[in-house]
Amino acid sequence: MRKVSTGRFFEDFGIGQHLVHAIPRTLHGGDISAYMALTGARDALSSSTELARSLGFQREVMPDLLVFHIVFGKSVPDISHNATANLGYADVRFLRPVYPGDTLVAESEVIGLREVSSGEAGVVYVRTRGTNQKGQEVLSFVRWVMVPKRDHGAAKGVNSVPQLPAVVTADRLPVPESMNLQRFPDLAWAFGSTARWDDYEAGERLDHPDAMTIEESDHTQATRLYHNTAQVHFDARGMAETKAGKRLVYGGHVISVATALAQNGLNTQLKIAAWNGGAHVAPTFAGDTLRAFTQVIERAEIPTRRDVGALRLRLSAVKNVSYAELAQVPPLLSGTKEPRIVLELDYWALFPRR
Amino acid sequence: MRKVSTGRFFEDFGIGQHLVHAIPRTLHGGDISAYMALTGARDALSSSTELARSLGFQREVMPDLLVFHIVFGKSVPDISHNATANLGYADVRFLRPVYPGDTLVAESEVIGLREVSSGEAGVVYVRTRGTNQKGQEVLSFVRWVMVPKRDHGAAKGVNSVPQLPAVVTADRLPVPESMNLQRFPDLAWAFGSTARWDDYEAGERLDHPDAMTIEESDHTQATRLYHNTAQVHFDARGMAETKAGKRLVYGGHVISVATALAQNGLNTQLKIAAWNGGAHVAPTFAGDTLRAFTQVIERAEIPTRRDVGALRLRLSAVKNVSYAELAQVPPLLSGTKEPRIVLELDYWALFPRR
Amino acid sequence: MRKVSTGRFFEDFGIGQHLVHAIPRTLHGGDISAYMALTGARDALSSSTELARSLGFQREVMPDLLVFHIVFGKSVPDISHNATANLGYADVRFLRPVYPGDTLVAESEVIGLREVSSGEAGVVYVRTRGTNQKGQEVLSFVRWVMVPKRDHGAAKGVNSVPQLPAVVTADRLPVPESMNLQRFPDLAWAFGSTARWDDYEAGERLDHPDAMTIEESDHTQATRLYHNTAQVHFDARGMAETKAGKRLVYGGHVISVATALAQNGLNTQLKIAAWNGGAHVAPTFAGDTLRAFTQVIERAEIPTRRDVGALRLRLSAVKNVSYAELAQVPPLLSGTKEPRIVLELDYWALFPRR
Repeated sequence: MRKVSTGRFFEDFGIGQHLVHAIPRTLHGGDISAYMALTGARDALSSSTELARSLGFQREVMPDLLVFHIVFGKSVPDISHNATANLGYADVRFLRPVYPGDTLVAESEVIGLREVSSGEAGVVYVRTRGTNQKGQEVLSFVRWVMVPKRDHGAAKGVNSVPQLPAVVTADRLPVPESMNLQRFPDLAWAFGSTARWDDYEAGERLDHPDAMTIEESDHTQATRLYHNTAQVHFDARGMAETKAGKRLVYGGHVISVATALAQNGLNTQLKIAAWNGGAHVAPTFAGDTLRAFTQVIERAEIPTRRDVGALRLRLSAVKNVSYAELAQVPPLLSGTKEPRIVLELDYWALFPRR
Repeated sequence: MRKVSTGRFFEDFGIGQHLVHAIPRTLHGGDISAYMALTGARDALSSSTELARSLGFQREVMPDLLVFHIVFGKSVPDISHNATANLGYADVRFLRPVYPGDTLVAESEVIGLREVSSGEAGVVYVRTRGTNQKGQEVLSFVRWVMVPKRDHGAAKGVNSVPQLPAVVTADRLPVPESMNLQRFPDLAWAFGSTARWDDYEAGERLDHPDAMTIEESDHTQATRLYHNTAQVHFDARGMAETKAGKRLVYGGHVISVATALAQNGLNTQLKIAAWNGGAHVAPTFAGDTLRAFTQVIERAEIPTRRDVGALRLRLSAVKNVSYAELAQVPPLLSGTKEPRIVLELDYWALFPRR
Repeated sequence: MRKVSTGRFFEDFGIGQHLVHAIPRTLHGGDISAYMALTGARDALSSSTELARSLGFQREVMPDLLVFHIVFGKSVPDISHNATANLGYADVRFLRPVYPGDTLVAESEVIGLREVSSGEAGVVYVRTRGTNQKGQEVLSFVRWVMVPKRDHGAAKGVNSVPQLPAVVTADRLPVPESMNLQRFPDLAWAFGSTARWDDYEAGERLDHPDAMTIEESDHTQATRLYHNTAQVHFDARGMAETKAGKRLVYGGHVISVATALAQNGLNTQLKIAAWNGGAHVAPTFAGDTLRAFTQVIERAEIPTRRDVGALRLRLSAVKNVSYAELAQVPPLLSGTKEPRIVLELDYWALFPRR
């Protein structure tokens, strides 16, 4: 009986396969502190019990991205242990607030498989869900990864690519029912800015002034906090023999750091509602200094809500540029090749309205 | 509408200006653990629920310096984002115990402004207060920082320096009312020393035997834990272009590490009551190894209390010396220039009496 | 009155001496998170409140090794501050589950003393016990360390080596009374493997596929989390002048990392019951990449229990080898000198039976 797991290869996946991922994870108040120390996050609703309660939550909420990373991390041994690339995300929806004391369980379903032309690997599409201890779904997302075949020559002839929404439409954005911004005007000071949903304009670009240099301990501790065991982040000796030559920073850590940097400019962002898509367009390594800029793509009303609106934002993380240089970095969608951009994340966030 | 903040310049401050700082911060039990892991602190009253209760507290108390750093950190974006030097502290009083679950809010008032002769900058004096979720003041301090002008030539002719006490007098030292040392004799083992207030003499010098080397991840994680966003600690790329050539360790981290090192010799220090003043006399960088020595300046009785007394201590942090060399390092007040001293902190602490 | 402590020398110990170690330590939920982030541990019973409850525990339990490290750390200032080597462990028994909110106190008794032939040092044997706030013993172990003499020439003629069990016999293995595996079959998914006690065979060897590179911040933060003040881990300047030339990683950190790596292959290990012995056979330094293999030594039934069995395992941590090379590393007991092995730990763990 084989007891150690070295992960699945492309041949091991089949459409409709359902995998419940090991080790449920109870979140503590201290996880919020650890997450903040490791990434620089300062989400207002995660920072104060009283502030969160005043706006309709039970208590301080776990940071949205911490929830994402834990659900993602749990899926790694079953889905992407051998993956050579994390190709994309779609239809990522943050369905319910998670609180300290809640326990997350993750499960995935294989929804697509596509062999690549070389015949050496294939793309695996999964829908991954995170649920809390009451069985309520708190997060749902699709991701696809490149997974090598065990037997490089063997063609399977599989080609089933799922239909995925390019954008989560505004009517599908989860807005916590209990969230109530009636008292927001008295509490706006807590967010450090007076800008609300109404003040952002489609086409606007924000160059966030802060920068953050990443250390090996920062990203590896964060990644271990999420129970993510992907070896590319942890095995310096093994990675020395790869093209990169060193450990890769977990892409989710880049998203967290970039989001934390973007708080200066998006201060009243209440929470993330959904990601439309995202790409880790270049690797990040320890020693890199990250900066971020955000483009406002669209402003959407939330049906049935007058107190809160959604902004569709495109967050770009850029490495090793000064603040002055940042303003000159064109977004990827402009068509220019920009090797300093390491991340582009297209997401929806909720903001208070006037 | 400008949405990103690049901090205030000297011209943006006015006497009497009142600023409520963003993002209230709820403290978790896990913050104590994180603080201990990052700094080496082992404050007895923060380490044990039962010990703290036996001595009259509700439960384990948050480390005094952790409370300081969080209140300080909150004030950074509004006060010292652009500061070129953190010049001094005065009248720092730790007014009330803070417990896990408490939420801190910080606010500041501008109490002094002084232009420097070059005309390029000015000194800003603020009184900063931390309050808990009940609105009770837990910490109050004055600090002053050098802030550049936006417009270097423009003289404002401002010169209003506040009257500040050189020393917090013993009658103004906060002593927690509920603290009751009746059971101390049974619990002295928990502190690891039999020395009490009565055993320390003015003029005594303690050379603490322990040393601690600081890593980039240690000080940056600690500084992020406090929501402190000062870029000099985080942006290695930007700092490479400055005279220092690298990131500066947050001065408060040096205070925490030095205080932790000083626990071996000041074991029965119950809590910090006040700082009279302090100066970061030289920068500390990752890779530096810190040691500390303490001079006993004065022993003061606490009016109305027979169980507890105050010691006025001068803590010096010294970098990159052996234990043998430490004993030869003269204190700064001796008038000799001693480049290896990075910190001098003049403070009052409470100790049990016989 | 001497106030700083520089630790005990061999002459300061006497048979029967009883030492209660300073600073009791309350454990928080956040300590579990910190421990996981620092070491990569993912113990299932520590990860989920609901899982732990379903198997008969009050709530998630503190990781066994975290409890060990804290009790050990507390004993350092009194026992091993000046130790030049941590020679061995025996009769280490994990007697009771520890929960978030519990407070640990450590005490030691000197049970043996043996002068070494050079006359310059001696071996000190202590029995160390950890108790919770109810006075219940949660951990008991013997360790022995090499401690230099203050006065190198002075022979004491002491030679009292305690009788120690080479192995903790199966009838002395602590099994939590409340633990009840009736619901295990429904919860096996949570452990990520179907292998149970019955599936392991004496003589079997598991080469665990994962690797972990250790950073200075990782091991020093972990060691500070345990209140362990041994200077060899913290003083880079002082260690530069020793033969090692740099800081040593706390041996307990190596045990934790190796145990975390071994989870892939020992997934259903419920908890550690006892250590028979262990040796840190070579130093580990920051930058080293650890791997681990496990040999199954024996399978023992637990008297009175049909749901749970014990496996005697020998865990070896190996540094700076590839996964392919790992399989070629012979265990130390084979008699070959193998300089890449840094740890050998002989322990008993509890596994569910079919």
